[in-house]
Amino acid sequence: MFLTRTEYDRGVNTFSPEGRLFQVEYAIEAIKLGSTAIGLKTKDGVVLAVEKRVTSPLLEPSSVEKIMEIDEHVGCAMSGLIADARTLVEHARVETQNHRFSYGEPMTVESTTQAICDLALRFGEGDEESMSRPFGVSLLIAGHDENGPSLYYTDPSGTFWQCNAKAIGSGSEGADSSLQEQYNKELTLQEAETIALSILKQVMEEKVTPNNVDIAKVAPSYHLYTPTEVEAVIARL
Amino acid sequence: MFLTRTEYDRGVNTFSPEGRLFQVEYAIEAIKLGSTAIGLKTKDGVVLAVEKRVTSPLLEPSSVEKIMEIDEHVGCAMSGLIADARTLVEHARVETQNHRFSYGEPMTVESTTQAICDLALRFGEGDEESMSRPFGVSLLIAGHDENGPSLYYTDPSGTFWQCNAKAIGSGSEGADSSLQEQYNKELTLQEAETIALSILKQVMEEKVTPNNVDIAKVAPSYHLYTPTEVEAVIARL
Amino acid sequence: MFLTRTEYDRGVNTFSPEGRLFQVEYAIEAIKLGSTAIGLKTKDGVVLAVEKRVTSPLLEPSSVEKIMEIDEHVGCAMSGLIADARTLVEHARVETQNHRFSYGEPMTVESTTQAICDLALRFGEGDEESMSRPFGVSLLIAGHDENGPSLYYTDPSGTFWQCNAKAIGSGSEGADSSLQEQYNKELTLQEAETIALSILKQVMEEKVTPNNVDIAKVAPSYHLYTPTEVEAVIARL
Amino acid sequence: MFLTRTEYDRGVNTFSPEGRLFQVEYAIEAIKLGSTAIGLKTKDGVVLAVEKRVTSPLLEPSSVEKIMEIDEHVGCAMSGLIADARTLVEHARVETQNHRFSYGEPMTVESTTQAICDLALRFGEGDEESMSRPFGVSLLIAGHDENGPSLYYTDPSGTFWQCNAKAIGSGSEGADSSLQEQYNKELTLQEAETIALSILKQVMEEKVTPNNVDIAKVAPSYHLYTPTEVEAVIARL
Amino acid sequence: MFLTRTEYDRGVNTFSPEGRLFQVEYAIEAIKLGSTAIGLKTKDGVVLAVEKRVTSPLLEPSSVEKIMEIDEHVGCAMSGLIADARTLVEHARVETQNHRFSYGEPMTVESTTQAICDLALRFGEGDEESMSRPFGVSLLIAGHDENGPSLYYTDPSGTFWQCNAKAIGSGSEGADSSLQEQYNKELTLQEAETIALSILKQVMEEKVTPNNVDIAKVAPSYHLYTPTEVEAVIARL
Amino acid sequence: MFLTRTEYDRGVNTFSPEGRLFQVEYAIEAIKLGSTAIGLKTKDGVVLAVEKRVTSPLLEPSSVEKIMEIDEHVGCAMSGLIADARTLVEHARVETQNHRFSYGEPMTVESTTQAICDLALRFGEGDEESMSRPFGVSLLIAGHDENGPSLYYTDPSGTFWQCNAKAIGSGSEGADSSLQEQYNKELTLQEAETIALSILKQVMEEKVTPNNVDIAKVAPSYHLYTPTEVEAVIARL
Amino acid sequence: MFLTRTEYDRGVNTFSPEGRLFQVEYAIEAIKLGSTAIGLKTKDGVVLAVEKRVTSPLLEPSSVEKIMEIDEHVGCAMSGLIADARTLVEHARVETQNHRFSYGEPMTVESTTQAICDLALRFGEGDEESMSRPFGVSLLIAGHDENGPSLYYTDPSGTFWQCNAKAIGSGSEGADSSLQEQYNKELTLQEAETIALSILKQVMEEKVTPNNVDIAKVAPSYHLYTPTEVEAVIARL
Repeated sequence: MFLTRTEYDRGVNTFSPEGRLFQVEYAIEAIKLGSTAIGLKTKDGVVLAVEKRVTSPLLEPSSVEKIMEIDEHVGCAMSGLIADARTLVEHARVETQNHRFSYGEPMTVESTTQAICDLALRFGEGDEESMSRPFGVSLLIAGHDENGPSLYYTDPSGTFWQCNAKAIGSGSEGADSSLQEQYNKELTLQEAETIALSILKQVMEEKVTPNNVDIAKVAPSYHLYTPTEVEAVIARL
Repeated sequence: MFLTRTEYDRGVNTFSPEGRLFQVEYAIEAIKLGSTAIGLKTKDGVVLAVEKRVTSPLLEPSSVEKIMEIDEHVGCAMSGLIADARTLVEHARVETQNHRFSYGEPMTVESTTQAICDLALRFGEGDEESMSRPFGVSLLIAGHDENGPSLYYTDPSGTFWQCNAKAIGSGSEGADSSLQEQYNKELTLQEAETIALSILKQVMEEKVTPNNVDIAKVAPSYHLYTPTEVEAVIARL
Repeated sequence: MFLTRTEYDRGVNTFSPEGRLFQVEYAIEAIKLGSTAIGLKTKDGVVLAVEKRVTSPLLEPSSVEKIMEIDEHVGCAMSGLIADARTLVEHARVETQNHRFSYGEPMTVESTTQAICDLALRFGEGDEESMSRPFGVSLLIAGHDENGPSLYYTDPSGTFWQCNAKAIGSGSEGADSSLQEQYNKELTLQEAETIALSILKQVMEEKVTPNNVDIAKVAPSYHLYTPTEVEAVIARL
Repeated sequence: MFLTRTEYDRGVNTFSPEGRLFQVEYAIEAIKLGSTAIGLKTKDGVVLAVEKRVTSPLLEPSSVEKIMEIDEHVGCAMSGLIADARTLVEHARVETQNHRFSYGEPMTVESTTQAICDLALRFGEGDEESMSRPFGVSLLIAGHDENGPSLYYTDPSGTFWQCNAKAIGSGSEGADSSLQEQYNKELTLQEAETIALSILKQVMEEKVTPNNVDIAKVAPSYHLYTPTEVEAVIARL
Repeated sequence: MFLTRTEYDRGVNTFSPEGRLFQVEYAIEAIKLGSTAIGLKTKDGVVLAVEKRVTSPLLEPSSVEKIMEIDEHVGCAMSGLIADARTLVEHARVETQNHRFSYGEPMTVESTTQAICDLALRFGEGDEESMSRPFGVSLLIAGHDENGPSLYYTDPSGTFWQCNAKAIGSGSEGADSSLQEQYNKELTLQEAETIALSILKQVMEEKVTPNNVDIAKVAPSYHLYTPTEVEAVIARL
Repeated sequence: MFLTRTEYDRGVNTFSPEGRLFQVEYAIEAIKLGSTAIGLKTKDGVVLAVEKRVTSPLLEPSSVEKIMEIDEHVGCAMSGLIADARTLVEHARVETQNHRFSYGEPMTVESTTQAICDLALRFGEGDEESMSRPFGVSLLIAGHDENGPSLYYTDPSGTFWQCNAKAIGSGSEGADSSLQEQYNKELTLQEAETIALSILKQVMEEKVTPNNVDIAKVAPSYHLYTPTEVEAVIARL
Repeated sequence: MFLTRTEYDRGVNTFSPEGRLFQVEYAIEAIKLGSTAIGLKTKDGVVLAVEKRVTSPLLEPSSVEKIMEIDEHVGCAMSGLIADARTLVEHARVETQNHRFSYGEPMTVESTTQAICDLALRFGEGDEESMSRPFGVSLLIAGHDENGPSLYYTDPSGTFWQCNAKAIGSGSEGADSSLQEQYNKELTLQEAETIALSILKQVMEEKVTPNNVDIAKVAPSYHLYTPTEVEAVIARL
């Protein structure tokens, strides 16, 4: 009896004969079921925009938080399991606060990202901080430090990349193509807002309103747009 | 031999190839077997109402507790495994008391909800506080803090949402539809009581009496209705 | 190969696809194999009566303990695995003694019951106090505190209910029906004794004697009836 | 594929769908393979008698110890796995010595029995004192304390009963029947010796000699009979 | 699908439905593959003799140690896995040295044997001293203490017996028969040496030489025979 | 049913009947999926060159780090899982810094390599520092110490070799052949740079640019080439 | 379904029904895949010789270390998994250094060998020092102490033997035959060198050069031959 690939993932962190880690690949599938999030870096700061999927009119839209502040100079947009993302964000908040306390200066955006990925990588190890499975979430981490604005993308394997622009979630394939066409390094923040929202509009199945999208910028401080500010961006589309 | 999806849930916290967590989904099924609970937020406070399922005339109705106080400004209604709910509520009570002791002020409703979800998320990790399986219970958490009244809904995945109105349990589908029709933000507390109980009446298979429903409000303090007070609401239907 | 429900219970504390916990349901089966126990609450106190199943004439009847004292104001009758019950009772004895020592007053009957259920709920978690499987026992906990007499019923899931009257064990179905017919809140203790023993007589396959039943009351203190006292109740049937 | 009952016992301490604990039942089978042991309580003390199964003429009969002293007022006869019994006896010796040291008086026979059963019940829990499987041994515990002589019978489930007379091991079925016929509470110690040995003789396949049986009494102190004393009892048959 | 007995031994310490412990039985098989060892007790001391199985002429015969000293008054011969035996012997050496240090007198031979069996019994328990499987070795423990000379035989189940004479290993069946014919309690040490070696000669497939057998005595101190002393015994055959 | 080799790797660190460790072999497969990296030792220092696989024009090329500094005299190129490599490099950085602090001098390149392999070897052991699976990464470790320049190659088994030149990753087979043809010990650093990049060019499917390759040298200090310096090497091809 | 022997090795340290330990036998297979190593003891010291298998001309031959120093009076040659051997050697180095520090004298060669075997035996036990599988390596341990020169051979089961001459690895079968023919106790060190290398030459598939063999002696101190010294031995063949 030759066992098929599906037998390998019950050990959560085990290589298949082809050298693959299936649990990580399955967690990446979880993100493909998630809502779409988009990030763009401009020379003046970074813009994040997310689809909120408010499934019932009785839900409070502001409580569907898919963009969260990590520190005053770093924020992130997420796609996948929200409860997992909250754990990573909470971990990053503690790390950045500890850094400020110990060194009297903010943690760099790359170090913040690395701290999140260290936790993500150690799943299945049974120690106190780690999960017993991969974190089923991808993050777009936007920040501003002594090197200027930066945008990082993390996946469930604990790997991260620095990007100029990136989309994650169920609509990411189409959104990434659109970003490649429309992105250039000379964009203003306002242009980036417009591009992010117009691409989000394409991949969402409903009309864009301040209730079902969120926008934030880090320029150089984190700011989550008010409904009025979102409305203003929508008006520009 | 290709293994079917049912093979994946024996590792309690493992992704399936489609990126799903079956144990969490099965725990959600446990809630669909539970009694119905309803919550409505008004500008004056939050109303909770539950079906009690007193299975025998020899049972003491008041001992079937499906609405519980967490702190004087927070209460919750539950559906699913009652023993699991008691563990979550007890955890929340300790957290809110510790917060009062440490900071001299009540914990916010959102922080209380987050504390419950942190515990719910960590199942299967083998540490002291967590369960070896997901908690098989959903909560409607009603509270009142410096931001006014608020209503949160939690599920076994450790995710939470803020709602204006929400139903959980076996009758939740029909009850949610009725809520969307009848809810508006200008409801008075008394109107909310009437709506909650009239919807509960529709989904229950027996006559509504002070013995088989419980009602509570947080406005701004938690109060569980006496049989006489419940009788008064029934009379208004 | 689609796995059937029986595959799910090897993880002792795991949900099935329908949201069920089979190990707990199987433990409940263990109780259906147990001897019958009956409890009735009156305004003057609570009566407990059990079938003793003395399997051999060489066994010392008084050593088949199926009613045990927890504290001077609380006692319990049990059905299922006696060794498991002894562990729960011993745990409750320590808790009630600690409470007396710390607060200078007896633990309430509900808190005593909750303490037993907390231990019952945590099976399969590998910590020091818990079992590696559900406790295969149900208890009828009779007590008397500042709220007067009370009767609680616990099952292997760690859930408890307050009752006016309740039967557990192999004859519980018939006994519960009889209790519903004969119970009313105005019963005297003596009437309750008679009802308990007459119902026990119906479900037992042999003649009732002081050797094969035990009776106790909490009114307001725990008292296990002597053979002579049992004989007197039998005489009244 | 419906799994048969044999699949359930690999988790050593797991309920089957019928509410049974197979590993405990299998351990009880181990005892049915063991040598026969008999205990009788008289008003003057308790008599224990065992079959020794000396498999080779080169074995030292006195080294086949199947009756052991626990404390000067308690002894026990065993059937099943001798190495398991030694662990239980050693545990009981430590407990009774600690009790004497802490309280300046001997442990009661029931408490000694309970201490043995507590250890037996906790198998499969992974802590320091417990075994990873049930103890494959039954004990007849004979003792004498402030309540006079007593005889307890324990099985691998950690349950115990007080008896007037009891047989365990491969010949227990026939021996128990004979005991019921011949036992009465007015027996003298000498009569009890004769009954024990005459019943043992029936179930053994070879001639009874001081080499293949052991006799002990607790009256009120533990005493293991010398070969001459055993010879005297044989002579009376 | 009814599982066959071979399924039960993967849990190393689990009862089969018939009440058997297969891993222990399999370890006993390991000993049947081992070299033969023989022990005889005389009134003047104990003789041990072993077959050495020197598989290559390039092996140093004296390094194939199958008789080892435990303390100056105790030695043992072994059959089975030599590395396992070394662990048990090393454990016994520490125990006997600790005993001498704590009490100023040698440990009795029975206590030494019990200490070895305690370690052997606890396999599969995951604590620091125990093995994760049964020890695959049997020992013949020869000693001399205040009770005179004694010979103990241990098996992988952690059980021990006191013997007058005993053979273990692949030739034990035939050797045991020969011992029963030739043994009597009045043997001198020299007669015991001759009997041991003549029986060993029967079960070995090659000529007996000082290179392929070892002889030791405890009379009253442990002494391993020199090649010349062995040659002298051979000459007497 | 004879189980095929694929059954053996679920125990992550278990020998197959042929004496192989499949999880390690599968991890080596993971490296064959990785990007190509090349190292050459010259008498003046060591050159490392890697393919960067920048999958999207929106990715920041400099954030795809496949050559990293360990200490000022040691650097490494990697192929396989980048997140795993980061863990090994971070471990090595701590070890080399501790060495400098404790001994006031740099760690030798071999000791640094050994420290990395010690961690790699201990996978599956459940202690704090180790992974629950093999590290899915190979490293080329370039350094310069009191013995002059050196180049080490590590694989997922925790084995290392010292090399004059070596290629790892998906193009390693062809690249190794080219290295054997073109390498000699008298190469200058500049010639080594040219050879490394010309071989990399052959195995890459796209045009070589400063965006998709990285070059570093340790001569005697670690230096990562700037885009301009990379451009200069490209120009020499 | 009768399970075949291959089912037994997934518990790494479990007996098969025939009393065999398959994981240890499989680890022994790993050594049969290893390079050949030869040891010869002479009255003046011990000679070790190994085949180095330098798989690529770009590998540094001196970094393929298959003979390693343990202490100044002990060295070893290895065959099998080199990373495993390094762990054993490192453990032995710490043990011998500790011994020198504690007792002011070198550890005997036998104690050094025992220390290595203790670690090898304890695989699969989950403690800090042990591996989760058998060590896949055999060692020839050459040393010189107060008893003169000695040569030990260890295998993955943790067993060791003292030898006059021994070959391990893929060519060991033929090499052992040749050793038996050519070995005698009166060999000089120089003759031993010649025999070792001439036998190695027979089992290697390529021409013997200082690059693909290593030779060492302990006479009485450990010394690894320089390429020139190896060349001199080759010249004598």
